[in-house]
Amino acid sequence: MDKERMAQLRESFHRSKIMTLFKAVPTGMAKGYFEISVPKQDFMLRPAGMFNGSTMATLVDVSAGYVAASAKPSESYLTTVELKVNYLTPAVGEMLVARAQVVKNGRILMVVRSDIFTVSNGKETLVATSLVTLMRLALKAPDVQID
Amino acid sequence: MDKERMAQLRESFHRSKIMTLFKAVPTGMAKGYFEISVPKQDFMLRPAGMFNGSTMATLVDVSAGYVAASAKPSESYLTTVELKVNYLTPAVGEMLVARAQVVKNGRILMVVRSDIFTVSNGKETLVATSLVTLMRLALKAPDVQID
Amino acid sequence: MDKERMAQLRESFHRSKIMTLFKAVPTGMAKGYFEISVPKQDFMLRPAGMFNGSTMATLVDVSAGYVAASAKPSESYLTTVELKVNYLTPAVGEMLVARAQVVKNGRILMVVRSDIFTVSNGKETLVATSLVTLMRLALKAPDVQID
Amino acid sequence: MDKERMAQLRESFHRSKIMTLFKAVPTGMAKGYFEISVPKQDFMLRPAGMFNGSTMATLVDVSAGYVAASAKPSESYLTTVELKVNYLTPAVGEMLVARAQVVKNGRILMVVRSDIFTVSNGKETLVATSLVTLMRLALKAPDVQID
Repeated sequence: MDKERMAQLRESFHRSKIMTLFKAVPTGMAKGYFEISVPKQDFMLRPAGMFNGSTMATLVDVSAGYVAASAKPSESYLTTVELKVNYLTPAVGEMLVARAQVVKNGRILMVVRSDIFTVSNGKETLVATSLVTLMRLALKAPDVQID
Repeated sequence: MDKERMAQLRESFHRSKIMTLFKAVPTGMAKGYFEISVPKQDFMLRPAGMFNGSTMATLVDVSAGYVAASAKPSESYLTTVELKVNYLTPAVGEMLVARAQVVKNGRILMVVRSDIFTVSNGKETLVATSLVTLMRLALKAPDVQID
Repeated sequence: MDKERMAQLRESFHRSKIMTLFKAVPTGMAKGYFEISVPKQDFMLRPAGMFNGSTMATLVDVSAGYVAASAKPSESYLTTVELKVNYLTPAVGEMLVARAQVVKNGRILMVVRSDIFTVSNGKETLVATSLVTLMRLALKAPDVQID
Repeated sequence: MDKERMAQLRESFHRSKIMTLFKAVPTGMAKGYFEISVPKQDFMLRPAGMFNGSTMATLVDVSAGYVAASAKPSESYLTTVELKVNYLTPAVGEMLVARAQVVKNGRILMVVRSDIFTVSNGKETLVATSLVTLMRLALKAPDVQID
């Protein structure tokens, strides 16, 4: 990924209100790879203390959007077509890390996998996996999903 | 649904930190049906102004959990096994409404559908649909997903 | 659906080698609705005698393709983008019926739901539900999926 | 995987009527890994000549079942809970190969990924990927899905 594109994505990430709310940090970025790290906050947890499914689904969606953007020229407009998450094990830990990679970089449609890990005492556990389809709309298109 | 169970779910909803953050209101509740309404907030939006996919996925997950709970006795412990959302059209509006219903009420596994609507000038539009699988764990079980 | 389009779909169905193998019959057809009925055959069954998941996934895929075609002009070329099936209960019966309807008829992407029923002694049971995304390619396009 | 278990799976595969119909061969087998190879036949093809989605969904389902079985003791009874396939590119080739691996080997639920490749002139292309959830039922249980 060229430096300009990387700077654009980083800037977009820092402007994102939902990522700000999550105190999320983009901890890895390359063409076709995007990693997001998120510290534990109360609203992310189930009563029993593990991360809830909504928080993990949010990280899947956001990491998928950024990894797809990382593989396309800057003027692309991307929208999520569908998203599927499998929750694998109780998500116990101090931090969540989402690691997204492009499975298929089509001209119109893209398929992405994002894996979600918890970090607990420095040890990582895979807690969810996913498949996401995104669509690339025409340059600077108005915000249109699917239609 | 008996009154006691309904009160339990309502109480649980009001204790939920993520629903509090979303300013969400449980606007419909019956055995096998659960509806959540959410007013627009900045962190829920894409730059172009429509609701983002993460917000809709969160409503799918939460409404699925509550509708599954509505169909089970109070001592059930439920966890999301997997979740799949199809985004249908740009989610433009002042409010999101999630309407979840039980498709299959199995002893161990449950399948739920949650439809997401935007409300704009009193008009509703279906903007996403979903299928969610949940698992019922033993009574008062520790918070265990899948394992 | 006009008569010409209906005749085209019926003809296409009867030419389909997989539907011939399945001894499948198109038992319902309208714009945005398609129904397929299939009698039990040995290769469709699990050892314990119920229909297997592969047979139901095939009916989901085929019924989704036809219902999408029913909602588009004749020169459309459609391809399945992704398919998700939830199996709900053991599929016991003499016959399978797939009932597909269009959830979203977008210009490029379409979302379809197909429900699968068994018929046993005249009684129907919902045994699987699904969501399918399809893509419409340009007129008479070469057979291109996603790319 | 011990030799007895491997022999059981191989025998079960050769008894399978749908795999016989597909002229499928189990070309790889280990604990947590299962590979199936299938030569092209007319009923597997779209009119334009590539493999159809139903054939690939069938290979996903069957390979997922066998890989799950490979990771469990012989007396397990497994059933597919849900299956999701992303079709990535036109499936052109002389042969399909499904490669399934266990992502999560839970006590009750298992999550599997199966990747589908075409082989054309000795060159492989990834044409579909998937996620499948399976459930393990009690020993020698009657054939019960989800319920």
